[in-house]
Amino acid sequence: MSIEINSRVHPEKWRIAPHVLDLETSIIREILKISSQPGVISFAGGLPAPELFPLEDIKKVTLEAIDQYGADSIQYSLSSGIVPIRELFAKRATEEGSISTTANILITSGSQQGIELIARAFIDPGDYILTENPTYVGALQAFDYYRARYITVDMDDDGMIVDQVAEKIEKYQPKLIYTVSNFQNPTGVTMSEERRRQLVDLAAGYDIPVIDDNPYGDIRFSGEPMPTLKSLGGDAVIELRTISKIIAPGFRIGWMNGPTRAITQFEKVKQCADLHTSNFTQYVIYEYIRQGFLEPHIEKIKADSLAKRAAMIRTMDETFPPGIKWTRPDGGLFLWVELPAHMSGKELLPKAVEMKVAYVYGEPFFPNGGGENTLRLNFSNATHEEIVEGITRLAKLFKENL
Amino acid sequence: MSIEINSRVHPEKWRIAPHVLDLETSIIREILKISSQPGVISFAGGLPAPELFPLEDIKKVTLEAIDQYGADSIQYSLSSGIVPIRELFAKRATEEGSISTTANILITSGSQQGIELIARAFIDPGDYILTENPTYVGALQAFDYYRARYITVDMDDDGMIVDQVAEKIEKYQPKLIYTVSNFQNPTGVTMSEERRRQLVDLAAGYDIPVIDDNPYGDIRFSGEPMPTLKSLGGDAVIELRTISKIIAPGFRIGWMNGPTRAITQFEKVKQCADLHTSNFTQYVIYEYIRQGFLEPHIEKIKADSLAKRAAMIRTMDETFPPGIKWTRPDGGLFLWVELPAHMSGKELLPKAVEMKVAYVYGEPFFPNGGGENTLRLNFSNATHEEIVEGITRLAKLFKENL
Repeated sequence: MSIEINSRVHPEKWRIAPHVLDLETSIIREILKISSQPGVISFAGGLPAPELFPLEDIKKVTLEAIDQYGADSIQYSLSSGIVPIRELFAKRATEEGSISTTANILITSGSQQGIELIARAFIDPGDYILTENPTYVGALQAFDYYRARYITVDMDDDGMIVDQVAEKIEKYQPKLIYTVSNFQNPTGVTMSEERRRQLVDLAAGYDIPVIDDNPYGDIRFSGEPMPTLKSLGGDAVIELRTISKIIAPGFRIGWMNGPTRAITQFEKVKQCADLHTSNFTQYVIYEYIRQGFLEPHIEKIKADSLAKRAAMIRTMDETFPPGIKWTRPDGGLFLWVELPAHMSGKELLPKAVEMKVAYVYGEPFFPNGGGENTLRLNFSNATHEEIVEGITRLAKLFKENL
Repeated sequence: MSIEINSRVHPEKWRIAPHVLDLETSIIREILKISSQPGVISFAGGLPAPELFPLEDIKKVTLEAIDQYGADSIQYSLSSGIVPIRELFAKRATEEGSISTTANILITSGSQQGIELIARAFIDPGDYILTENPTYVGALQAFDYYRARYITVDMDDDGMIVDQVAEKIEKYQPKLIYTVSNFQNPTGVTMSEERRRQLVDLAAGYDIPVIDDNPYGDIRFSGEPMPTLKSLGGDAVIELRTISKIIAPGFRIGWMNGPTRAITQFEKVKQCADLHTSNFTQYVIYEYIRQGFLEPHIEKIKADSLAKRAAMIRTMDETFPPGIKWTRPDGGLFLWVELPAHMSGKELLPKAVEMKVAYVYGEPFFPNGGGENTLRLNFSNATHEEIVEGITRLAKLFKENL
């Protein structure tokens, strides 16, 4: 029957919304496909180092979570997340200087869903969002679905140039200010404390929330710790956090910390999206953190990332030709390369893949275009030897195309 | 600092989109809060029986999944879902009569996310969706976010009265036809085979997809098996399935089966929503099914549900006063009660809760209003003794308010 009827069915005539048909597939996902070809050394993804995943500890805490919480660990659960993990994240925020309760915390399916829920609650087509230039491409994807427009603010070594913000707010009335304040994706740059204070002041004055997308804040491996935007800005800030970079991404556990009034709205729009995030993975991660596994594990990640970043930068210092600049992040997973103005990261990528090395070119990170001569390198995923070899290949490529 | 700044922050002035502020919190969630008071026998939720959850088998397969798939089980993964579980679901669909490959399958975070992704891809404000009357309230919630409007089709003991459909399609041009064809939530009614054939014929003719939300299809405990809409309609149908009712809800694993062209669009809008569903829970459930635990477990659930449904109906037969009607479902989790026209399920609920018994009144299931004299009873979650006692209390309530 289904074969017979299929000749009369035309799914291509189904009326999918035009703005959905227009949405682009993530360029990064496309690059990841290319760069996962055998033999390619990839600096393209944002993947944590798999050899650090604490598989044995996860096995232990999973069994204990099932024994301890029984049927509750796999029954329907609260849209806002299980209470004990929210208590734990509220306590963590309070210790970081932002007094929080469970009512401030909403568990999300990765911090990508945090971005999505904020867009879902705030954005009507044509609304403006203020972002750094460049900014995280996954956030742009989430915002693009809602047909947001972007006002961008330039960056320097101290992050977003906040002096430009007030004028742009006055002119465009953005609904949200979106920043990745720590070890930004894609640039690796961290916002200075002075800029942080300026930004939350502005946000409070104009009644516009600051979204601090903060997946990397815990992975500071050099330099001095910085107060979070949330600890400086209190209810002016919605902070997004995740365990993806400090334990593993596959559990899809992130959380938001915001004013209760806003959290109530996000909870409502989450409920109609997926009822709730897996309580099974929430209980597993809760037990992992409660039993004290997290902090020592973060130290391991930091040591590993520091060594890999050092290897990458040392090799760049030694091999890259003059005229190329790059950032020297104190944490996170990425650094950012600026080629001479006439060179194109996009045009060079196929040649790089021929030489069995891959990166993400910079253009998709610029909401309103630009950045042709830039590219992003990940230093968390490849091994030390791959980093040295891959960077040496890139140096050769750049020299040949200067 | 954050306390000082908080006196100057006014999150109530943040410009959350008006249509989001207008969204109602789920009435069912509110009723669940009331009915979870101590001592209340609740027929309100749609919760599977927790005493049947296969906790020991889950422990076993979780350890094996981690050992077998290692870091891949918790690294970033594909937006469409891990390949082996999609192969398994494609095979299952093929065995049910709908030839499917992995390209037809998208893993969702529960089947609620399946509904959401379809709305996300298709619905612009004001678009019409054709539904049964009454229909699943969680679907209405997902659709409401997108400001859909509804055309409803009446039901009888054979499900949606498909004779009414063509005229309504001509008049309103709905973008989607939404049905719960098996043991419908809320009524427990199953669509007859003849109606199924009629409906997929119409859908093919008018190029409108039929969404068959089919979470209960596997739980048929009496009567003859019926071909799925997907097996009859092929590419005219997008089927939504879930493990929530046949293993447990807390893993948040559902799946869609649709034409590849549509699946590609859903994958795209899922990617910007949450990147992907937890691969950890996908591998756990994959191992559970691969190792052959599922089919015997479904048999257990069927036996349990059959006994509970029998106890509920027997007690209703014995105790309910004349003038009240109810359905006698062959599967699923719910049955549906129609009181005399002058009685209100909503008005009686507080009195029921006083008598320590709870249900969900029917109005929220009617997209365009009505159903004041109806209510839904769940027979999967309470114990046998609670069912007898709770139904006896309801009988008393109804007699006193006839």
